[in-house]
Amino acid sequence: MTSDASSFYFPAPRAQRFCSQCGTQLTQIIPPDDNRLRDACGRCGAVHYQNPRNVVGVLPVWRDKILLCLRAIEPRYNTWTLPAGFMELGETTAQGAMRETQEEAGAQIELGPLYTIIDVPHAEQVHFFYLATVLSPELYPGPESLDAAFFAIEDIPWSNLAFKTVITTLEHYLEDRETGIFPMHHYDIEHVSHKSAG
Amino acid sequence: MTSDASSFYFPAPRAQRFCSQCGTQLTQIIPPDDNRLRDACGRCGAVHYQNPRNVVGVLPVWRDKILLCLRAIEPRYNTWTLPAGFMELGETTAQGAMRETQEEAGAQIELGPLYTIIDVPHAEQVHFFYLATVLSPELYPGPESLDAAFFAIEDIPWSNLAFKTVITTLEHYLEDRETGIFPMHHYDIEHVSHKSAG
Repeated sequence: MTSDASSFYFPAPRAQRFCSQCGTQLTQIIPPDDNRLRDACGRCGAVHYQNPRNVVGVLPVWRDKILLCLRAIEPRYNTWTLPAGFMELGETTAQGAMRETQEEAGAQIELGPLYTIIDVPHAEQVHFFYLATVLSPELYPGPESLDAAFFAIEDIPWSNLAFKTVITTLEHYLEDRETGIFPMHHYDIEHVSHKSAG
Repeated sequence: MTSDASSFYFPAPRAQRFCSQCGTQLTQIIPPDDNRLRDACGRCGAVHYQNPRNVVGVLPVWRDKILLCLRAIEPRYNTWTLPAGFMELGETTAQGAMRETQEEAGAQIELGPLYTIIDVPHAEQVHFFYLATVLSPELYPGPESLDAAFFAIEDIPWSNLAFKTVITTLEHYLEDRETGIFPMHHYDIEHVSHKSAG
């Protein structure tokens, strides 16, 4: 599936070198009434602020089973995740969560309440997961998923889940199932550094 | 206070014309495995995604009074607000909320729980407000505030508050004070279009 186009295009990294307004090379300054270094344009005056991104997703339940998607993209290729992705301009977190469920699993859902709100500062992200009821067992995984499937609670692939926010959201869900009460949970995920072989 | 520098610099708008990586003029394409138009660079391949921003703030309470700041900046110059501002890279929503309270009011606070989470899709933002206890009545408003002051409940300047998210957060607080229970509230703010004279 690797076309010329898909190997050519890449998401622009955080590091910025040129002004998006006039194309001039950027410098770092502390703007007036600000208190930290920003990428700024000495020619046109544009200051290029950067901010954390929101990831919005769903914990979709079909009877007693949970819908997971097998990632077809990096990071965490070939690991299981709750359907989730970056929030887009002009949508709410709920609309984004429904869109991602459609794109990654092709599942028809009825969205429930916001369930987990997770600060992930080392990734410069905030994650939001909604509860949802799946309305039909038919799934149509999109290009970002190798597969989409329903897992009984005892079959959740804990050792092959994609992200800590997915693991902790599922853990809260299993715990709250005991009482049948699913309040909003807000917490932070600390960065755990892994020593790599490299 | 208007120096040459403060009239020269401005936040870069959403509309992008040049690649931040190589300075080439951008075109709009639908990237491979994507489904919407993005600003992309035909020379280096960088795709310039854009995402909503988070605004993080605090509802600070000193005894029976609420701390508000009078805005010294647009939008909504000279209106009262809860201390709040854009979340920065590398911080949590809680850390950002505390930082903004320090910057805008110079207030010492003890942060409480996350209280309101508000989707504001027409502004391409999500707002977060924490409850907080003010530890000392001394205030040192920063350059983004004309003033900072404590208001008794009956003196809240409802007709001169800055944003709908500030108004609704205060409304929830007054309602929850009746019971003494302050659960997290998540909701959307719809866009209300105002016909202007212009």
